[in-house]
Amino acid sequence: MDHEARLQRLRDSLSSHKLDRLLVTHLPNIKYLCGFTGSAAALLVTERICLLFTDGRYRTQARDEVKGAKVVIAQKSPLVAAAEWVAAHSSRTSKSGSSQSRPVGIEAESLTAAMRDRLASLLKGKSRLRSAPPLIERARMVKDATEILRIREAVTLGASLFNVLLEKIRPGVTEVEVAAALEYKARCAGAEGMAFPTILASGARSAIVHGRASSARVPDRGFVVCDFGVILAGYCSDRTRTVHVSKPSEKARFLYDSVLEAQQAAINAVRPGATAADVDNEARRVLRKRKLAQYFTHSTGHGLGLEIHEAPRLALGQTQELEAGMVITIEPGAYLPGKWGVRIEDVVVVTSSGCEVLTPTDKELVIV
Amino acid sequence: MDHEARLQRLRDSLSSHKLDRLLVTHLPNIKYLCGFTGSAAALLVTERICLLFTDGRYRTQARDEVKGAKVVIAQKSPLVAAAEWVAAHSSRTSKSGSSQSRPVGIEAESLTAAMRDRLASLLKGKSRLRSAPPLIERARMVKDATEILRIREAVTLGASLFNVLLEKIRPGVTEVEVAAALEYKARCAGAEGMAFPTILASGARSAIVHGRASSARVPDRGFVVCDFGVILAGYCSDRTRTVHVSKPSEKARFLYDSVLEAQQAAINAVRPGATAADVDNEARRVLRKRKLAQYFTHSTGHGLGLEIHEAPRLALGQTQELEAGMVITIEPGAYLPGKWGVRIEDVVVVTSSGCEVLTPTDKELVIV
Repeated sequence: MDHEARLQRLRDSLSSHKLDRLLVTHLPNIKYLCGFTGSAAALLVTERICLLFTDGRYRTQARDEVKGAKVVIAQKSPLVAAAEWVAAHSSRTSKSGSSQSRPVGIEAESLTAAMRDRLASLLKGKSRLRSAPPLIERARMVKDATEILRIREAVTLGASLFNVLLEKIRPGVTEVEVAAALEYKARCAGAEGMAFPTILASGARSAIVHGRASSARVPDRGFVVCDFGVILAGYCSDRTRTVHVSKPSEKARFLYDSVLEAQQAAINAVRPGATAADVDNEARRVLRKRKLAQYFTHSTGHGLGLEIHEAPRLALGQTQELEAGMVITIEPGAYLPGKWGVRIEDVVVVTSSGCEVLTPTDKELVIV
Repeated sequence: MDHEARLQRLRDSLSSHKLDRLLVTHLPNIKYLCGFTGSAAALLVTERICLLFTDGRYRTQARDEVKGAKVVIAQKSPLVAAAEWVAAHSSRTSKSGSSQSRPVGIEAESLTAAMRDRLASLLKGKSRLRSAPPLIERARMVKDATEILRIREAVTLGASLFNVLLEKIRPGVTEVEVAAALEYKARCAGAEGMAFPTILASGARSAIVHGRASSARVPDRGFVVCDFGVILAGYCSDRTRTVHVSKPSEKARFLYDSVLEAQQAAINAVRPGATAADVDNEARRVLRKRKLAQYFTHSTGHGLGLEIHEAPRLALGQTQELEAGMVITIEPGAYLPGKWGVRIEDVVVVTSSGCEVLTPTDKELVIV
């Protein structure tokens, strides 16, 4: 990971937004910029200085992990220590009330309202705070070659776990037993953990979009939506397959094929210059044609990387243009409450001419 | 769970804080008040009304889970929908600028600064926002009988997993293999998931306070710190045991015995009326006597329940008095960077005369 280049790009964009200091508090952004993975940290980036504030619990870990920043072990909250540092290194406000120094950028999308109030009070008279645009999130949308490699490895590991599902999903087994076997295999294969609570929703529960694995038993017949991701070397995978227990009815097959067609149409729409809304719209167009649009109750996909949900968001009205190097999920679904649901999801990387689907194995309906 | 009584207590405390509306956005607080476990929600509590705003993905789940609140499926962000509802149901500000309605309480400790700005702009001229005190967090500190039962069950499950550690921890095994076996057993026994990433830190890594299970191999000799918790029926457990591979040196045994003595002293100090700082101080007093105080680099414990870290915090300067029904961890440790570390942790419930240790099994040093 080229942390220095990332820091330099951030400094360039700070300058063009008339900020010369940014207080980074969103932990995945801190990890992106300097490699630190602890749970208590604040990173102060100025034109010349980069300081990582953390606490005593992370002394050893910070020494091992941090690149391109000087580590400060705070005796109090890292963010408070960072604010005190800023206050001590700011020029005073003149009598007329105008500050000689530019405002300090903060990440208002992740900083709590209470913490902003506290920062403002710590900086009183020394510096103002200003909500910075999501500069780091924007940079993170486009992955470099190392990141794409890492995501590819995570996705490949995630895909290899599909066999566990095929072995385990049988009438009468509890959803959570299937999830447990999947997660065990993931861990043994080197995953640091799951990217989100495993979704395993069988029978009528398949209509619950976020149906976490429960103590419900897989029925004799019906869909099972399996949506899971691993974290491998810091990067997330995300994948959904819907299988069917016993022979599907004609209607079940129609639902599955419709979602699959919608998913393929959305994948075909991915290319540099297309907007996030264009891709979303393609999936909806297919489902509308099949009179299923009303049952597609979420967005078509999202970016992923260090976090399971990152920019861009592939949804109605999202004007963000896709660029080569973005990594996104394509995951339309259709859910008929109380009856059944289907979702199919792949991870794709935007290329110069279209996209590459990173998720292997085919998507024909598997009957178990 | 008596959701109605919880809601009534909240309404009483709102009134005594001159608030007649509270916009609840911290998800564990929403779960506490109405049972909803989805990831997108805002709960509006007024003197007469309780509305849960969520989105289309959670229609079925909300219908199944929510108690004591009316469900509103929003076409946009639940919080924005809630703010629009408040704006539509507020009396207008008079020409003099004074509002006829009292301010709307918000949870500034969890609401982001960006979202507060957005809420303020949606409510402009209709209602003001005011940071409410942590009313629900305070109520949640003292558990009712059902909650204590749930936590007891989670803790008992957590403790039963210790045998997995004893079977698996051997020289040469990777930390992550041990953690995977533990987590698999937890899932199969009904846990919804782990309460936090499993800490398994062996050899010199035992000095890393938050040493998540890694690909490092357990050495031929040394400490292994095992800190893990499960979530069972919504409630967390938390437990640390430190075992030793091969015969410990005299110094290793001294370190272990010192931490154990500190932990026992802290447990003995738990009683209604003692402050959180009193308990913390007891652990430090013992370690000071053993010249180890400088190596105890974190607080002595924390509340737990729906979340793994809740109020109160058992640390220096914390004046919160303990009350019967509070459930807290007692977990002093000592860490010599680059060399080794020990932590011992139990969950205790404060009783009318002292406390009951919920975590079973003894704490003599186990040699594997």
